[in-house]
Amino acid sequence: MQQVLILGGGKSSTFLIDYLAVTCSSKNRFLTLADLDEKAASEKLQNRPNTEAVSLDIQDESSRKSMISKADVVISMLPAFMHPIVAKDCLELGKHFFSASYESGEMKAMKEEIESKGLFFLNECGLDPGIDHMSAMKVIHEAKGKGEKITSFKSFCGGLLAPESETNPWKYKFTWNPRNVVLAGQGTSRYIEKGDLKFVPYHQLFKRLESVQFLGLGDFDGYPNRDSLSYRKVYGLEEIPTMLRGTLRRAGYCKAWNVFIQLGMTDDSFDMEMPEGSSLRQFLNAFLPFNESLSVEEKLAELIPELDFPTFEKIQWLGFFSERKLPRTKGSPAQLLQAILEIDWALEPEDRDMIVMQHQFEIEGEYGKKLLTSSLVCFGEDSTYTAMAKTVGLPLAIAVDLFLDGKISLKGLYVPVVPEIYLPILEKLESYGIKFRESESPLN
Amino acid sequence: MQQVLILGGGKSSTFLIDYLAVTCSSKNRFLTLADLDEKAASEKLQNRPNTEAVSLDIQDESSRKSMISKADVVISMLPAFMHPIVAKDCLELGKHFFSASYESGEMKAMKEEIESKGLFFLNECGLDPGIDHMSAMKVIHEAKGKGEKITSFKSFCGGLLAPESETNPWKYKFTWNPRNVVLAGQGTSRYIEKGDLKFVPYHQLFKRLESVQFLGLGDFDGYPNRDSLSYRKVYGLEEIPTMLRGTLRRAGYCKAWNVFIQLGMTDDSFDMEMPEGSSLRQFLNAFLPFNESLSVEEKLAELIPELDFPTFEKIQWLGFFSERKLPRTKGSPAQLLQAILEIDWALEPEDRDMIVMQHQFEIEGEYGKKLLTSSLVCFGEDSTYTAMAKTVGLPLAIAVDLFLDGKISLKGLYVPVVPEIYLPILEKLESYGIKFRESESPLN
Repeated sequence: MQQVLILGGGKSSTFLIDYLAVTCSSKNRFLTLADLDEKAASEKLQNRPNTEAVSLDIQDESSRKSMISKADVVISMLPAFMHPIVAKDCLELGKHFFSASYESGEMKAMKEEIESKGLFFLNECGLDPGIDHMSAMKVIHEAKGKGEKITSFKSFCGGLLAPESETNPWKYKFTWNPRNVVLAGQGTSRYIEKGDLKFVPYHQLFKRLESVQFLGLGDFDGYPNRDSLSYRKVYGLEEIPTMLRGTLRRAGYCKAWNVFIQLGMTDDSFDMEMPEGSSLRQFLNAFLPFNESLSVEEKLAELIPELDFPTFEKIQWLGFFSERKLPRTKGSPAQLLQAILEIDWALEPEDRDMIVMQHQFEIEGEYGKKLLTSSLVCFGEDSTYTAMAKTVGLPLAIAVDLFLDGKISLKGLYVPVVPEIYLPILEKLESYGIKFRESESPLN
Repeated sequence: MQQVLILGGGKSSTFLIDYLAVTCSSKNRFLTLADLDEKAASEKLQNRPNTEAVSLDIQDESSRKSMISKADVVISMLPAFMHPIVAKDCLELGKHFFSASYESGEMKAMKEEIESKGLFFLNECGLDPGIDHMSAMKVIHEAKGKGEKITSFKSFCGGLLAPESETNPWKYKFTWNPRNVVLAGQGTSRYIEKGDLKFVPYHQLFKRLESVQFLGLGDFDGYPNRDSLSYRKVYGLEEIPTMLRGTLRRAGYCKAWNVFIQLGMTDDSFDMEMPEGSSLRQFLNAFLPFNESLSVEEKLAELIPELDFPTFEKIQWLGFFSERKLPRTKGSPAQLLQAILEIDWALEPEDRDMIVMQHQFEIEGEYGKKLLTSSLVCFGEDSTYTAMAKTVGLPLAIAVDLFLDGKISLKGLYVPVVPEIYLPILEKLESYGIKFRESESPLN
């Protein structure tokens, strides 16, 4: 009997667990879900046959290794820093390894040993990274197969809210890790446009926007996300003159979020101590120049010349001009800000999230030049069965199932950029409503 | 015979060496100058009696310790990271220690042992820190002695150029460590104004300016420097509502420098690789948004709305709109920028530097409220005998001389904020033309 082990049954594992629990039951495999919280893990398995929840402290090396030694494939849904540790165990014990996270340098260093032991290690098989790679590579391979040339590739993704849940002026709530949202974009982003390398410091990032549209959903803003340059190699597009990966927010969000950045309120590098009982207004004032005769609102408007009414309204809605008390007074500015947002941007149980992804290719062929747009929109069901959990978990679950079915027979270290991996996964995803819509238009 | 040991005979040691060489000769002490470059060290001592230059690799522990063991007092003019290492040697070998650098956490940790061994360790006895502490404490102690209350203390210092050497539009050349100038202000600066804590992120710092005047020299801009809050305790001004320490540049410099910051060109956190043979214009363009129809100049003006002509002229003077080749193409943006500036901002042999320092106190007494301004202007002689070397080295040399004369009899870890240290040093400095001019005016 094939043994499947999932490490970590957190929020983004819902669909992964369901999919593998069902297929393990029907295909006479056995699924073990290991989590610190055995009870919660057990509830997620819903007493399905051939499944078992076990308690595991992942830091306990001997329990972890003993559990891994009994498995055939191991799926790590743990925090990112744990993946290399689990992967090393798998390498030592001769087990196949799957994750939805970035292929780290530590993972790359295991490449030869994975190959020599005839194992299959698959990373970046979630949403972003994951579905983005697969759907893009399908277009890229098809174009190359037809002898066409891709001259520009921009790709955007966002984890947002279904329109009916956009019930605040930001049109945003936390559908994933709040800390990552508050710190998003820190560091320097890099991309290439018409052959020119571009470097964008954090304090310019949320102004460097491209407007992106989705049918029936209206306007979004995309800002450049980290190092787009490194993806040229991954996608086999080393010579492409334009390559940009971006993150999507609802139109208007970035302009307002940029106010926090300009103020220094997303800074995570030092600790401040606001007096106990300080208000949000006082917190805001700590980042404004002193002025005897101007109000906080006036000083903000003077510091941020582009502060228009929609932006002002978003800041105001969070209570920054009010005497509302800070929920947290000690910590980095980013931590204090996060504590405020965790109250105001909390997802309600009935809220539905939404994943939007769009690839924009400029392709040259015998016919001339065209713009090919490939778009994905995916809605969550509620605040548990989220689109985020679905799009992160299903590709990984499908990959594991295909591998155990013998339909992926590769050995070595992979991300899903080869047809043998991405074609059957994309096909299966379509039956779950995760389907890209393509449109084409000629370019001058 | 008292043995004095100077570790490090670099650019900022000139006056220190001269002063101690002369006093050691006349007071029958012996001065040893240890440096990696024995020849240069020897030249600095000019064959004065009772002096000797020796070669020392400061990383060589046994040579260093053997040299320290022969000394009575040790003066560290080494890079900052070496001070705690030398101080530990001194502690172990029972030697007195002097430096012009910040009293680090590692130094503070030695406090008790310094006291129990009856040693004297003096740090922050240069210019800034150093003369700033001494001159400020004199005013503060005098005011307190008269029962007056200090309600505001702003203090500014800058290492700049004598007016006749201000021969470029920036009115700036490197009179000290270029890397420190390029990275100046990174991190978050903190101060307090009328009871409000203020936090200034780096990308706002060079806009948060105060105009400062010096008699006969015109206008300077001061921006907040690091953590002004921590100085409240050092100066015994825990309850003061306004406290700000700032750095001075010539009026207009900060506005232009801020363009580099806004672009991300002072970023030292990642490496870029510009193609070999790239021009300054291409380097600049890498930080600008792509636009098919706008020139580099137009894109810059669009990105930086406050780009006025004096600012544009400064950027242009450095060659950023020209096809001039980058002197360095690989490294962090800050390193590439520094390589450009090291050519254009090089000090000519005949250039004179200038140190400006100004304390602004608001003081309440029986008479009401007054503004007391205390200003120092000090000119260098040439590019070797600089005002920087003079104001950094003389206070330290005088402190050592006073200590050896028995005129400072304190034991323990100190910065020069006690009258027994600062009064005789300030008095001696006056005879070298380092003299503060005070002016008072009533406040409403």
